[in-house]
Amino acid sequence: MKKSIGAQTILYPHPVLIVATYKEDGTPNIAAVSWGGICCSRPPCVAISLRAATQSHGNILARQAFTVGIPSVDQWREADYSGIASGHDTDKFADTGLTAIASDLVDAPLVEEFPMSLECRVKEVHEIGLHTQFIGEILDLKADEEVLGKNGSPDLEKVRPFCYATGNRRYYAIGESLGAAFSNQRIADPRG
Amino acid sequence: MKKSIGAQTILYPHPVLIVATYKEDGTPNIAAVSWGGICCSRPPCVAISLRAATQSHGNILARQAFTVGIPSVDQWREADYSGIASGHDTDKFADTGLTAIASDLVDAPLVEEFPMSLECRVKEVHEIGLHTQFIGEILDLKADEEVLGKNGSPDLEKVRPFCYATGNRRYYAIGESLGAAFSNQRIADPRG
Repeated sequence: MKKSIGAQTILYPHPVLIVATYKEDGTPNIAAVSWGGICCSRPPCVAISLRAATQSHGNILARQAFTVGIPSVDQWREADYSGIASGHDTDKFADTGLTAIASDLVDAPLVEEFPMSLECRVKEVHEIGLHTQFIGEILDLKADEEVLGKNGSPDLEKVRPFCYATGNRRYYAIGESLGAAFSNQRIADPRG
Repeated sequence: MKKSIGAQTILYPHPVLIVATYKEDGTPNIAAVSWGGICCSRPPCVAISLRAATQSHGNILARQAFTVGIPSVDQWREADYSGIASGHDTDKFADTGLTAIASDLVDAPLVEEFPMSLECRVKEVHEIGLHTQFIGEILDLKADEEVLGKNGSPDLEKVRPFCYATGNRRYYAIGESLGAAFSNQRIADPRG
């Protein structure tokens, strides 16, 4: 018997995506977002949701661009801070000591210390409710050489990302590998 | 110097969401989806993206409902299989031995063996490109008593979910806790 918990926004794992934008005066800003993820393969797109009250929301509407940085476990405190403080009140790059570098493709900054970032141009804006969902077309993925795997893509074990748990409001590292995806073609019960 | 990798759909971590629906004849179906996540807090909504060619896509349009199950690490092979086989060709519940139970709120099944599931009614449908994004309003979260934490919500450490890594196409468990979210209010550099 399943227990009814109510209409909660819990699924596991939530990513910790650091959305980087420019303010009206050109100051770079970052904000942690867990309401988001890849939403289309062709064109390659990522979805992030933000409340209208946030600095990032206005920045994205004005510049029609943002980047999504994936912080490593070493940067969890900076990532957490970027989700607490408001860009309306403070310079979060100065506060955290992180470094903004200009994207050569979109009107938004990258965070130099993060191992990988997606550079996105706004494709669609959906007003869902409390949150606005921004669909960004991914124009490029920029990564540090050291986190690339043999196939040339960023490797999770080198990026060392982390996730957010809504239930107990804690961050968790990623653990051991369970096995290869797309490897269980023959699971079908022979009795079936 | 960041390296340009091209417009890849990689971010970490991707969830492994098992979307459960009914086919036209009432047979239950499941499919693994990693393009998705929570997208709004009020109303509580989850976004999942599916190609039009999939069985689940048609099922959701017809019934205007789906559930999102979170499998535990013990179920990674069944979850993987549900992302390989097509509901057009086979009965994936029969193949995997998983059990479909009827939702009392939406016209879609739950997977009994999964520790938690979100019951969703379609709120919006966005044609983004190769993928269609379904925004589901979460009407309830159903969970096993054993996975609830002290605060009554499903606890990540008890649910034991896993994630998908696009780069090397492997699944990973969730690892150790890094610390409490919203705990780094005072990171600001005192020199800043």
